[in-house]
Amino acid sequence: MRAGSLSAVHITVGYHEDFLGLVDNLQSWNQWFEECGDLVSKATTYMEILAANAAGKTAILFGLQNPLAIGADLARVELLSQLGIRFCQVTYNQQSLLGAGCFEAQDSGLTAFGREVVDEMNRVGMIIDLSHAGHKTAMDVVAYSTRPVAVTHANPNIWHAAPRNIHHDLLQALSDTAGMVGFSLYPHHLKSGSECSLMEFSQMATEMVEIYGNEMFGIGSDLCQDQPDSVVNWMRNGHWRKISTPPAVFPDCPVWFRDNRDFLTLADGLKAAGLPTEHVAGILGDNWMAFWQRGFVPS
Amino acid sequence: MRAGSLSAVHITVGYHEDFLGLVDNLQSWNQWFEECGDLVSKATTYMEILAANAAGKTAILFGLQNPLAIGADLARVELLSQLGIRFCQVTYNQQSLLGAGCFEAQDSGLTAFGREVVDEMNRVGMIIDLSHAGHKTAMDVVAYSTRPVAVTHANPNIWHAAPRNIHHDLLQALSDTAGMVGFSLYPHHLKSGSECSLMEFSQMATEMVEIYGNEMFGIGSDLCQDQPDSVVNWMRNGHWRKISTPPAVFPDCPVWFRDNRDFLTLADGLKAAGLPTEHVAGILGDNWMAFWQRGFVPS
Repeated sequence: MRAGSLSAVHITVGYHEDFLGLVDNLQSWNQWFEECGDLVSKATTYMEILAANAAGKTAILFGLQNPLAIGADLARVELLSQLGIRFCQVTYNQQSLLGAGCFEAQDSGLTAFGREVVDEMNRVGMIIDLSHAGHKTAMDVVAYSTRPVAVTHANPNIWHAAPRNIHHDLLQALSDTAGMVGFSLYPHHLKSGSECSLMEFSQMATEMVEIYGNEMFGIGSDLCQDQPDSVVNWMRNGHWRKISTPPAVFPDCPVWFRDNRDFLTLADGLKAAGLPTEHVAGILGDNWMAFWQRGFVPS
Repeated sequence: MRAGSLSAVHITVGYHEDFLGLVDNLQSWNQWFEECGDLVSKATTYMEILAANAAGKTAILFGLQNPLAIGADLARVELLSQLGIRFCQVTYNQQSLLGAGCFEAQDSGLTAFGREVVDEMNRVGMIIDLSHAGHKTAMDVVAYSTRPVAVTHANPNIWHAAPRNIHHDLLQALSDTAGMVGFSLYPHHLKSGSECSLMEFSQMATEMVEIYGNEMFGIGSDLCQDQPDSVVNWMRNGHWRKISTPPAVFPDCPVWFRDNRDFLTLADGLKAAGLPTEHVAGILGDNWMAFWQRGFVPS
């Protein structure tokens, strides 16, 4: 992260963990902050990001890819915020108590409890993340939320038609409501997968800026650097099904984005695709920073 | 219960409790069994019901009105079975991870995780209870389950159009698959509410037997005897929403069904409505006993 000049990283503290599983993960992060305090520090506010950067460190922001740690308890939202959680997905691929995932055959839309949770996330200043949600659920959330929401890691479906990528209607709704989208570098979200070229990716990003404007885009790398394949199997299956299919494996990263060191390569690619310098800076971090500065504040 | 000659009662051990909340409730039940061992005993098999009855006791069967204690962990189904849980609802009024409740604006149907849980409940011999489910979710479950399922407490929607009561399509599907329905005595499920007469109720039951056959009906009283109004507020709201509406209160019971002692009054009413004696015995308990004898056995 330091070699890639990263100011701040939104990391995942839970996929299928319940509340106690999340607590275990947070305890591990506390230990890592203690051990690696010269490189990274936890941030829960915009000012803490700036402070980390001033000290030569990368700020670490906590996000949940699944609301399971909330359980069916609305008061958990504020408590999770107090533990430093700054992003929470409405669901992860399948149905949650809040809404449907992009791999469900039917899309429930935002549920009654989901509306309560969105209200509470709006109140405490936790960013609602629509990555992995179903299209109808995502559209419902954008319409219902009183504050801008994000799809932290996905690409446009028109560029690469994957269940995880997002449709024009959602991109337009996010553009209309000051929302954010992080372009994903996970091979399954890329045209031609691991073979996708830097120019193809950068041209897609440049075209999206032309359609929806620069301010709503950033990077949401979905990078699983040095994680073993057991992690992708946890991501896919959690404990919610018996694994009868062959174990999943992580796809190969594109050669131009091997790990965190290659964020600077992205800047070169975007420039080569013709994106103006100030927009490159926006996508590489300034847009997320502005979004977080507003989003992390309680209403 | 003893004054009402009850052989067995399916009681609720959890509404909105998570796993640890359920464990607390089960510990309370263990204490009550210890304290009241001359009157009731826990039963998890058909033979244990018979043994309780032979000893002059009412058998207590554990059921969950909400699958929250399963969390997102498929292996919890068997563990809950080992703790004695013999019934579990797909959901309670709102969306669960398995399917939609009858008060959701949109019905997700049975979810991907829901299908896994139905498979597992089929395997271990836990009865799937569709009370409080949405219509589409309920129909999906009947179609998907390889074993008969139940609506333990509800009445026909055609008799009293309440969201909790059930439609002909579901009654027919249950009839076609050897399912069961328990007629409810909760005033909100009764025509004319607390003012419903014993004859009105008994005529409804008699008509249902004429249409769908005797074997699929029993009693699911939904009786909340001597429970304070805090319980109905827990049932309605759990911890999933902030209570801004006036607190809920339990409705008055019909004068002919004040509590467990009035089960014998039900038998008189059904006879007076013209139901043959052997069908009265079926509805008052024999049908549930036959269903449980088959349903509690692992497949």
